[in-house]
This record gives sequence, C-alpha cells and structure tokens, in this order.
Amino acid sequence: MTEQTQKVETEMVVRYAETDQMGIAHHSNYPVWFEIGRTDFFKKIGFPYSQIESMGILLPLTDMKCKFIKPAKYEDTIVIETQISTLKHVRVGFHYDVYNKQMGTLIASGETNHGWTDRQLNPIGIEEKFPALYEALKHGHAT
Amino acid sequence: MTEQTQKVETEMVVRYAETDQMGIAHHSNYPVWFEIGRTDFFKKIGFPYSQIESMGILLPLTDMKCKFIKPAKYEDTIVIETQISTLKHVRVGFHYDVYNKQMGTLIASGETNHGWTDRQLNPIGIEEKFPALYEALKHGHAT
Amino acid sequence: MTEQTQKVETEMVVRYAETDQMGIAHHSNYPVWFEIGRTDFFKKIGFPYSQIESMGILLPLTDMKCKFIKPAKYEDTIVIETQISTLKHVRVGFHYDVYNKQMGTLIASGETNHGWTDRQLNPIGIEEKFPALYEALKHGHAT
Amino acid sequence: MTEQTQKVETEMVVRYAETDQMGIAHHSNYPVWFEIGRTDFFKKIGFPYSQIESMGILLPLTDMKCKFIKPAKYEDTIVIETQISTLKHVRVGFHYDVYNKQMGTLIASGETNHGWTDRQLNPIGIEEKFPALYEALKHGHAT
Repeated sequence: MTEQTQKVETEMVVRYAETDQMGIAHHSNYPVWFEIGRTDFFKKIGFPYSQIESMGILLPLTDMKCKFIKPAKYEDTIVIETQISTLKHVRVGFHYDVYNKQMGTLIASGETNHGWTDRQLNPIGIEEKFPALYEALKHGHAT
Repeated sequence: MTEQTQKVETEMVVRYAETDQMGIAHHSNYPVWFEIGRTDFFKKIGFPYSQIESMGILLPLTDMKCKFIKPAKYEDTIVIETQISTLKHVRVGFHYDVYNKQMGTLIASGETNHGWTDRQLNPIGIEEKFPALYEALKHGHAT
Repeated sequence: MTEQTQKVETEMVVRYAETDQMGIAHHSNYPVWFEIGRTDFFKKIGFPYSQIESMGILLPLTDMKCKFIKPAKYEDTIVIETQISTLKHVRVGFHYDVYNKQMGTLIASGETNHGWTDRQLNPIGIEEKFPALYEALKHGHAT
Repeated sequence: MTEQTQKVETEMVVRYAETDQMGIAHHSNYPVWFEIGRTDFFKKIGFPYSQIESMGILLPLTDMKCKFIKPAKYEDTIVIETQISTLKHVRVGFHYDVYNKQMGTLIASGETNHGWTDRQLNPIGIEEKFPALYEALKHGHAT
C-alpha cells in the first residue's frame, strides 16, 4: 500500500452523436468523458459510484475546467487518464488527461472539483460518513 | 369545454451542440424536442409535469417513433406541435409534428407512448390516482 | 461466404450523464446506442463508417423506432446486437436488440432506416457508387 | 456607439433530458447553455454565428471553465447573461452568468476562450479577414 494515488486509464471511442458541424467532438462531451474516467476510477478502487450513490452519498460538482489542445474526431479511440488532485474532509478533486490513442498525443486536460453531500445536497464529511471509501481515495485503491 | 384535445405549439432554436458532422441536427435530438413539446403541453393544460412528478407520478416511455422528412440546421427556428393521440386508464400517447418556422414546412413527425407509474416504476391508474389531471388530458385543458 | 447477414455485438456501460431524474437512462440515448452498434457493424464488415463518410457518402436516417421493455441504469453493462433488416439500392435498414448483460434480458429493441446520400444530402445508389461496400452489407462481412 | 461591450440576456427552460439521477441539470449542459448565450450574442450584434460559419470562419474553444453555485432543476427558467471578456487579433473570450429567473439568484458562472480558424482549423486573424465582425465584437454591436 502506497500513499501515491493511482492513475486509472479508461478507453472509449468517439461517438457520431458527439460530433458537431465543425466535424469534431463537441466540447460539451469532455465533461462527460471526464465522468466516464471518474466512474472507472471509483470502480477500480473498489467502490463503484453507483453503489456509493445508492447509499445516499452524492458527489455534485462545484467547478470544472478544461483545456482543448487537439480536436477529437468520430471513431477516434480516446484514453482518459484519471487521478485525484485534491482530497479533503468534505471535498475531492480529479485531474484528467485525454489522449488520442493512435497518435499517442495529449488532446485535452481538465479538472473537476466536488463536494460530498446527502440526497438533499447538504454537505457531509466523507471521512466520518464512509471511512472505508475515504481511505480508498487517500491511497488510490481499496485498503 | 370541448372533447377535442388541443394542439400546443412550442418554439425553439436549434442548438450548435445539437448538430453533427453531417451539418444537420442529430436525430437523437428529436425525442428531446418531442419532450419539450410534451412539457409545454402539460404546462398549458394547467398541470406542469415537474409538479406531477413531485407528487410521485412518473410517465416513462414504452415506445417511440420518428419520421425524418427534412433536415434541421443550426439556428433554425423550429415549431413543435403536440397533441394527445391516445388516452387510456394507465397509458397516454402523444403525436408531434415538427415544422421549420421560416419555411413553413413539416420536417419531422413522431409519436411517444407512455405508462403512468409510481416512483418504483409500477403502473398506476391515473383516472383514480389523479382524476383532475385525467380530465384535463381528456379535454386538452384544465377543467 | 454466406447470404446470412451477421449480428454484431457491442458492449458499453451506461453513463451517469445518460441518466435522468427518473433514475434511469433517458430514452433519447437509445438512438445514440443504436448508432454505436451501427458504427461497430460497419467496422466489423471492414468498412469503418468514418472512412465511408470521408469518401463523401453519408447515411442520414429516414425514420426510427424504439420499444422500451426494461429500464437501463447507471453503470449497467449493455450489449447492443445489430443486424441489417433491409438492404435496397438506395436504402439500408438496421434492427437492434439491447440487452442487460448481467441479467441477460432484452431491455429494448428498435430499428433505423437510412438513405445513402452525397454531401449535399442527394440520394445515391450505393451499389454503383461503392459496390464493395454494397457486397459487404449484402453478405454481412467484407468479401 | 460606446466602447462598452453589451451584455446579452437569453432565456431558456431546463429540459427533462438535461436532468440526471441526482435530480438536477447535469453539469455537462452548462457549456451548451453558454453556447446558447453566445449564439444569441452574435445574433444580437448583427452577425448570426450560422452566417459566420457559412463564410468558412469557425470559432473552436481553446479552454472553458465553470463554477456551479446552485443547482438548476427541470422546468426552471434560466437567464444566461453573455459578454465578451477578451478580444484579441486571433482570439475572443466570453464570460457567462447564469441566473434562476424566478429566484433572481446567480446559479453558475463561466468562461470560454476561442480562436478564430478556417475550415481546416488553422488560425486566422479576424480583424483582417472580417473587419466588420471585429468592429461589432469590439463595440458589442453592429457599427
């Protein structure tokens, strides 16, 4: 067990529906792709996000940002690299690097920050509420 | 008060994000546009759908179809004409005609069929559960 | 080589962004999922759709329909089974069956019909314009 | 005519398809809403963006950010306030404030930065290429 949080890699193919009339993936898809990476991150540390939510623990965004470097095109295979950027009592942040798999080039990077809440969107402290999850996030994998 | 259900007209502008690399609105947006028409229909007969749902009454789809006649393009003003096609004890169906406002031409038409359910998606009879809504649907407006 | 067109199976995971406040995947995603199956179908018969389009051959929809049997939920693994339903001079149709992989149950089925066109959306005969693709579609795989 | 760029206000209603299983509008919709504001901004300064694009001048994003303050819910009426934040030779930036109309409260704010390009996504100088548009952007309205 190490203090270093892991990077989780997730592969996906750009959908036709994700393109726009510029002929590239519309920028509003990148937050969705980040979320795919985040979903995979939680799954791989042993706490699928669907299970976390079914316990009444939600993780809405407080802010996000994204830098677009190269366009993504229909049928491109994309690799999303997801890691934790910040971890606090009631908050967690993720950093994402998005690569074109065939080219091997970074095409976008971004961050999302989140607060843990109950179903009524009131803040909760994840360390007390769900210590096993907190530890898994801290170490990047299930303890 | 008449037995004839009303047609509700709803206007919207095609979003850039709705286009695809063919240069037209992607076909998956039409069910979303139908839903905009349906939302407006419920609002105009006096029962906003958000209020219906907050009472624990949901209206998931059982099937849908859509015929695409002419493409819709970015910044086109679209008019959705919504009306009830079938109304039964536990079910309701809607028909939609979508027009290009500037051209005045029909560009698509479609139907969605729905079953009334509770929050656990179990069927409910709307006539007993919410008679005022049933009457409003029957007559196309609040009684 | 057989006359029987093949069924292509494509696996995907339901995205959080695809859910709605009913707690299930929104119905407008099913046409997108059908398209994922269609993309995979073209790829597996040896003619990736991105390459077809880069040759100036488009395949817009003329109509679609979908029957919803069971809801799909966030993180469900879905299997889309895609096959050709009709193949004509200027048209092609696809049938889709969508399964919940874990349950093994059919959750939705649908069809899309398409016309082959040039970049200006004028109909073209695929048999003359691109005979190798026509043959591959006819036999369900590259000849 | 003043040097002060104008704020353009655009009203829209949150769509059901935009909600997620948290019961709020999914965060990936905010970049789409910003784009609605931007479309309206260009229209109101006399240069509809669909016309700019039909001249072969595109405006892809280089980066975006968004801060989420309060959730938006289905059927909420939203007001997007759009203004230019930076204007340079080959670049333009926009700032957006998103309000809940009924509450009168700011629910989100964000920025998008863009580079002017030709159809092949190569940078172009808008001041030389399309001086009337540059002037309109500079002054926030058609000269």
